[in-house]
Amino acid sequence: MAQWDIQHVMLDLKQARQDWRKSQQRLREMGGRELPSKQQLKNILNQLCGILFPMRLGPADLRQETEDHYIAYSLDRVLSDLLQQVKLTLAYRQKYHQAIDTGTVSQSDWQNNLSRHAEDIVQDFANNLAKIRRLIDADVAAAYRGDPAAHSVDEVLLCYPGIFAMIYHRISHQLYPDVPLLSRVISELAHSATGIDIHPGAQIGQGCFIDHGTGVVIGETCIIGERVRIYQAVTLGAKRFELTEAGQLKKDYARHPIIENDVVIYAGATLLGRITIGEGSTIGGNVWLTHSVPANSSIMQSPTASQQKSKST
Amino acid sequence: MAQWDIQHVMLDLKQARQDWRKSQQRLREMGGRELPSKQQLKNILNQLCGILFPMRLGPADLRQETEDHYIAYSLDRVLSDLLQQVKLTLAYRQKYHQAIDTGTVSQSDWQNNLSRHAEDIVQDFANNLAKIRRLIDADVAAAYRGDPAAHSVDEVLLCYPGIFAMIYHRISHQLYPDVPLLSRVISELAHSATGIDIHPGAQIGQGCFIDHGTGVVIGETCIIGERVRIYQAVTLGAKRFELTEAGQLKKDYARHPIIENDVVIYAGATLLGRITIGEGSTIGGNVWLTHSVPANSSIMQSPTASQQKSKST
Amino acid sequence: MAQWDIQHVMLDLKQARQDWRKSQQRLREMGGRELPSKQQLKNILNQLCGILFPMRLGPADLRQETEDHYIAYSLDRVLSDLLQQVKLTLAYRQKYHQAIDTGTVSQSDWQNNLSRHAEDIVQDFANNLAKIRRLIDADVAAAYRGDPAAHSVDEVLLCYPGIFAMIYHRISHQLYPDVPLLSRVISELAHSATGIDIHPGAQIGQGCFIDHGTGVVIGETCIIGERVRIYQAVTLGAKRFELTEAGQLKKDYARHPIIENDVVIYAGATLLGRITIGEGSTIGGNVWLTHSVPANSSIMQSPTASQQKSKST
Amino acid sequence: MAQWDIQHVMLDLKQARQDWRKSQQRLREMGGRELPSKQQLKNILNQLCGILFPMRLGPADLRQETEDHYIAYSLDRVLSDLLQQVKLTLAYRQKYHQAIDTGTVSQSDWQNNLSRHAEDIVQDFANNLAKIRRLIDADVAAAYRGDPAAHSVDEVLLCYPGIFAMIYHRISHQLYPDVPLLSRVISELAHSATGIDIHPGAQIGQGCFIDHGTGVVIGETCIIGERVRIYQAVTLGAKRFELTEAGQLKKDYARHPIIENDVVIYAGATLLGRITIGEGSTIGGNVWLTHSVPANSSIMQSPTASQQKSKST
Amino acid sequence: MAQWDIQHVMLDLKQARQDWRKSQQRLREMGGRELPSKQQLKNILNQLCGILFPMRLGPADLRQETEDHYIAYSLDRVLSDLLQQVKLTLAYRQKYHQAIDTGTVSQSDWQNNLSRHAEDIVQDFANNLAKIRRLIDADVAAAYRGDPAAHSVDEVLLCYPGIFAMIYHRISHQLYPDVPLLSRVISELAHSATGIDIHPGAQIGQGCFIDHGTGVVIGETCIIGERVRIYQAVTLGAKRFELTEAGQLKKDYARHPIIENDVVIYAGATLLGRITIGEGSTIGGNVWLTHSVPANSSIMQSPTASQQKSKST
Amino acid sequence: MAQWDIQHVMLDLKQARQDWRKSQQRLREMGGRELPSKQQLKNILNQLCGILFPMRLGPADLRQETEDHYIAYSLDRVLSDLLQQVKLTLAYRQKYHQAIDTGTVSQSDWQNNLSRHAEDIVQDFANNLAKIRRLIDADVAAAYRGDPAAHSVDEVLLCYPGIFAMIYHRISHQLYPDVPLLSRVISELAHSATGIDIHPGAQIGQGCFIDHGTGVVIGETCIIGERVRIYQAVTLGAKRFELTEAGQLKKDYARHPIIENDVVIYAGATLLGRITIGEGSTIGGNVWLTHSVPANSSIMQSPTASQQKSKST
Repeated sequence: MAQWDIQHVMLDLKQARQDWRKSQQRLREMGGRELPSKQQLKNILNQLCGILFPMRLGPADLRQETEDHYIAYSLDRVLSDLLQQVKLTLAYRQKYHQAIDTGTVSQSDWQNNLSRHAEDIVQDFANNLAKIRRLIDADVAAAYRGDPAAHSVDEVLLCYPGIFAMIYHRISHQLYPDVPLLSRVISELAHSATGIDIHPGAQIGQGCFIDHGTGVVIGETCIIGERVRIYQAVTLGAKRFELTEAGQLKKDYARHPIIENDVVIYAGATLLGRITIGEGSTIGGNVWLTHSVPANSSIMQSPTASQQKSKST
Repeated sequence: MAQWDIQHVMLDLKQARQDWRKSQQRLREMGGRELPSKQQLKNILNQLCGILFPMRLGPADLRQETEDHYIAYSLDRVLSDLLQQVKLTLAYRQKYHQAIDTGTVSQSDWQNNLSRHAEDIVQDFANNLAKIRRLIDADVAAAYRGDPAAHSVDEVLLCYPGIFAMIYHRISHQLYPDVPLLSRVISELAHSATGIDIHPGAQIGQGCFIDHGTGVVIGETCIIGERVRIYQAVTLGAKRFELTEAGQLKKDYARHPIIENDVVIYAGATLLGRITIGEGSTIGGNVWLTHSVPANSSIMQSPTASQQKSKST
Repeated sequence: MAQWDIQHVMLDLKQARQDWRKSQQRLREMGGRELPSKQQLKNILNQLCGILFPMRLGPADLRQETEDHYIAYSLDRVLSDLLQQVKLTLAYRQKYHQAIDTGTVSQSDWQNNLSRHAEDIVQDFANNLAKIRRLIDADVAAAYRGDPAAHSVDEVLLCYPGIFAMIYHRISHQLYPDVPLLSRVISELAHSATGIDIHPGAQIGQGCFIDHGTGVVIGETCIIGERVRIYQAVTLGAKRFELTEAGQLKKDYARHPIIENDVVIYAGATLLGRITIGEGSTIGGNVWLTHSVPANSSIMQSPTASQQKSKST
Repeated sequence: MAQWDIQHVMLDLKQARQDWRKSQQRLREMGGRELPSKQQLKNILNQLCGILFPMRLGPADLRQETEDHYIAYSLDRVLSDLLQQVKLTLAYRQKYHQAIDTGTVSQSDWQNNLSRHAEDIVQDFANNLAKIRRLIDADVAAAYRGDPAAHSVDEVLLCYPGIFAMIYHRISHQLYPDVPLLSRVISELAHSATGIDIHPGAQIGQGCFIDHGTGVVIGETCIIGERVRIYQAVTLGAKRFELTEAGQLKKDYARHPIIENDVVIYAGATLLGRITIGEGSTIGGNVWLTHSVPANSSIMQSPTASQQKSKST
Repeated sequence: MAQWDIQHVMLDLKQARQDWRKSQQRLREMGGRELPSKQQLKNILNQLCGILFPMRLGPADLRQETEDHYIAYSLDRVLSDLLQQVKLTLAYRQKYHQAIDTGTVSQSDWQNNLSRHAEDIVQDFANNLAKIRRLIDADVAAAYRGDPAAHSVDEVLLCYPGIFAMIYHRISHQLYPDVPLLSRVISELAHSATGIDIHPGAQIGQGCFIDHGTGVVIGETCIIGERVRIYQAVTLGAKRFELTEAGQLKKDYARHPIIENDVVIYAGATLLGRITIGEGSTIGGNVWLTHSVPANSSIMQSPTASQQKSKST
Repeated sequence: MAQWDIQHVMLDLKQARQDWRKSQQRLREMGGRELPSKQQLKNILNQLCGILFPMRLGPADLRQETEDHYIAYSLDRVLSDLLQQVKLTLAYRQKYHQAIDTGTVSQSDWQNNLSRHAEDIVQDFANNLAKIRRLIDADVAAAYRGDPAAHSVDEVLLCYPGIFAMIYHRISHQLYPDVPLLSRVISELAHSATGIDIHPGAQIGQGCFIDHGTGVVIGETCIIGERVRIYQAVTLGAKRFELTEAGQLKKDYARHPIIENDVVIYAGATLLGRITIGEGSTIGGNVWLTHSVPANSSIMQSPTASQQKSKST
């Protein structure tokens, strides 16, 4: 059996960690981990899918007679699991972004406040679940209407990555104002599963249909209206990044497109900056667009741009 | 321990479900779930990979001496598992698309007919497994020949997402005429794992090599010849969707490209509509193409289209 | 219970395998499987992530007080697991690429040599772990600096697919010269999870930030400098493949771009061939580039190329 | 890697199986397995314990607010699982004990009859669950009253092997008349876990307390009254086995003791044959008893029987 | 798919639970479960065995070079898991046995006190682990010395149920004064695995060897000296149970035997009541003993008691 | 989060381990663990049960058509797993019991010899599997004939702990001469599951039926004839232990009973020492017997020994 020079490697890694912590002003011991868990959130989202769509995404042996019981029981468990993750996220934010003013707040009061805050967030999330379900129902109906290859609404719910991404987005978006880090983990779970990268901050109206979806990027401050259709590899991004006077990136300002109702954006189109795409417009495939267009515009890539050197014989 | 207002949320969700079912004319109780299971199909496909390539994708401790026994035993189990999923899919289709004419067919006869039909489908699938293996062997050989970075055929089988996608496609394509919904679930499993989205209806000849593959979309009615090479982010899509006289999407008509033998399509090219790319043609990267081209064409993006504002100093 | 014609299918599959083995000159029995295991490597990489970043990617209940113990214990196990995979890979290469000259080397000496070689590789890998950690720390810091949506370095480590891909790449790159097949499996694990396809041979300097990342392809012989920023769907590929005099693909020659320090490449840009992008240059979105550009160039797609047929009303 | 002479061993085993099947007149092929599954029944019993005692043996994160929902949902699933096992058991019995008279009953009618019968058995079982719960409550109360070491009724339910055995017995006894083989599997699960071997046929009144329990044997035709206390290693067995005129064992006749109300039987006592222990009697430790005793008897082992050769110094 | 009358059964079970809770004065809602978890404690004990004997009961791939690291890391985790179970047990006891005087102690102070108490218990337990290890080492050595069938001390540790039972007992005995319910769960885990039923309250000196062990019962108030040997089916029990003036069982008084140093008790012997077996005595198989004996006694069953009706021919 | 004084406890445990190793002359480092694994052997025995009785103890979805394939494939895997355990056991014995004479045997020759030896043991074991199957078939038939409560041979195989114990014994007995430690682990697995403790060295003829079985002990040097019936709590043990001249236990000499053909031994009987029970004898319940009896003896406990103080009223 081989013997590794474990001690040496361990010490090298320790030094690397210390250098990092020093560079991040984190030399004080933190005790336990205070970050939400990717695996836990994956389980929670799986459960929530079953609760939202019990007969289609719930357990295979569920029967309609007991679906309410299943929902009540599972919901109680999944909300408690979510509560744990929300608490971790809140505690992380407080430790990372602001020192606890130990002079004015006791450790146990701090803990109690954090718990109450977390419970409010989770209850509020629960109260919005039926609203989320209705939004996704509209997304499913839109996909069925919009894709000639779709043979039933159930196929859409079961198979379409765009719907998967919308379920995850509508959940993460609901949680975003309170626990942004947790929401980002959820959106990355969807990104990894579908190739569709929707920032949890993006506001998306009902009946949104993303087809195929691989490579779609929708930025943090996007506002998307109702009944919008988006194809694979579409980017709704920032044009350039503004700097603060200190020369650092400005964060958290409106820098992504506004897409009004009933817009269609074909595959590979790139829309950058705080521009507005007017209601009912169509943006063609591979178009590169950095300025606003009025309602009912139809923007296409120049047909002459390609095909120059056709040398058919 | 926090207490959630479960009852309230449960009733809201119930109302949302009822509204959906009402909108879909599904108010009658359905009993159990009649949809194929993603997780089950994932397991089945994993098993089938091991059966097709026992020494390379089968269990790590398998030895060549017993590979036939492994195949016989595993095949018996996996076909029974597949039978279950096929039955669910058939039953779903019958319930969803057409009412059972209870006047002419008894419940038990219906069940028997469905079982017999499902068994025929699965036996037929089994009979085609060796053909599928030979097709994928040709795909592997093509990838090895076509990629300077490939060092062995086994590396290709083990590592290339394009091969993964082709295995899944050749399986789902075989099942597509009988159980399209089930085939769609299989193709989405491959899409999620590889970023390559091939509709199970697409007809693909032998020796097809998709390199890198992320973002590739191949539509339902595509016909692809032999020895075709396709790079990442290539779209073989529909140009526009035709409407029926009632103003709804026409479904199931030929609307995707025909790619003849020995064509190469470079990364990011977008080919739309029922066009034909003649034998031996080369389509350059990022090309946008909506009309047919004759054999041996070479279509490239205009070199002047980019690089306008080079301001090197 | 249905009965399948197992015997028949089994024999068909056997014939298909034999035809393949014959075509590959592999008719001699091989005994057991000698290929690295995807699942094993997935577990190993998971463990290595926990060892590199114990408090953020390690087990949820780990505490800072015992992180060194956790690392020492886990490292010992994971290096032994890796040793297994390295041995399989070495044995595969020797069997596949060169016959064992049984005249000069005994079976047991061969085994011993292989073991010693494998142990050297793994020890060398272990010795480089701290260096890898420091490189990734720089990548994380670069991502935090470069993305206005990033709210903390921990969010970057936890959520950014570009960081996930860089961790896997820096590990697979370290192993690439000795066990290229194993490295390829690792890079495909990252590709499948993130949509970012970095060949393990690519050389990437510190502080590399790949944002969103879906569809990024970085070829085998790329050389990327420090502080480079790359957006989704960027291809750093080969322009064309050279053939040997025998008419087969030339393998293993420099055929991908060199990207110098501080370059930014926006979404969808395609850079092909052994070109050099000079220090500090900016390559715009969707640009198609096949020649070198000097330092501080700014290459943009022609604004007139798209938007030709705007027909707003 | 070692190579075993698999073929040879496989054929030897085949011959051994054929010899056995020939000796049992089972040479006809049976198709699939038609025996209840130990592992399945273990899961089912685990679930039933949680349904009977949700807050004490149910899932750790269950809360009283949702216990009814938990029960309704779990019960639906567990009854379906049980139905499967009941069907297997019925089918086995019919195949093993009596040939199907194919002349009078069609295969599909036979299947339907069997299903209906199985459903009746399971529904009847479900209807008796509350009765079973009440019986076990009485057993728990009796144990708490009867053991000075017991500190709470919950400790009794959680820790006492006698209670574990009684839960399993009361369930298996309920099922015994219809599916005796299945009941025997259940009783052996309890025997293996506790060392208490109660035949599912035994009739046991309420408030039965078996303390420590290892080695207790209670035979098939025992009748035990209310509030009986039994200690470890007590045997309530048959005295001798009667033979039929053909010289084979007579099966299924009353051959085990009747224990009337409020009897106490101390450790190691052996009671054999169809004897009656009168109400309120006490049977001492290690007593060997093969005749009936009237009410309120106190039977003790002779104190002089042991201790003969005390050679204390 | 069968449909059960779930609603009806659910309501019957609810009524049964309410009747029980009423009979136990527990009608107030309790919220969550506050009982230690059998499964959790099973995992904890498994871990503790690995920590106490890393190279023999620890993970199979552990190596001596890293055993300290393994212990430190595992211990930290297992103590936290144990802390959870201790807290549940303390909370249960307080709720069950005594009302919280809400007038004098706030809910949050109560929680803090409970946490502090639990942490003290667990730290104290940790501090005693090395002492426990030494005791078990002496038990192992005694078994090796005492059994002609034992070929090595490692065989004893690995295979002897008596040693398994002693490991569990020495752990549960350490925890008994503080969390008796939790200790009882641990002792029942050992009872179920070995058939040896040692109450956690029993005091057992070092070098105790229980051979075979099935059916051994050692009562709560037993005191056992050093180097005692006990064979299968030995009972060290209470003779009779005393009643309080109220006619209920007296609990918690000395009622089991005292066994002095170097005593041997052969299989099936029954020793009842608060008697003392003097140092160095031998108690023969199946002996029934209810009075004290002086040092060096040898108590045997009368040889004439059996073998009366030898009718050899 | 609580913080434990891990460092202190770790060092205490280290000291305890060192004291033990010193007392056992094991201060040299051993590297990895060289003991068979309980969990691995449990899995191996489970597999072997399925291979011996495929349609009754094999996987639930196995069908008779493919049972040979199942056996061939599983056998290959399970023999390789067993080989691992045999190697560990052989290496342990050589290290523990005899120093490797490094002067005459090289490390690599030693390894090769050990491997060859292990392979011979496993191949020999495989060759005897059919014989073992036939022996157990006879045990099953004997149990069915001997128990009025048995309704079919399948019930016996599925439910009778005596059969479970005999399967394990016949396997462990086969391996005992070569790898006794491994055999002891197997027999303890059966002991834990059934309460029946059969030493792997015991020789047991065909058609042996152990009913109920809890508490049965059968010693290392027992010789049991054919068609013997044994009830619960029977001990076939050693009478006293002989000492060597050095005052230590003599090991490995014949010290347990010889039971000739067709003997019946009723519950609780204790037979001690190298005595012979003549063919066809019956030993009554609770009998204590330490001398040989001739053929056809009937030994019963004195009826007057108990029941002295009957005080029926």
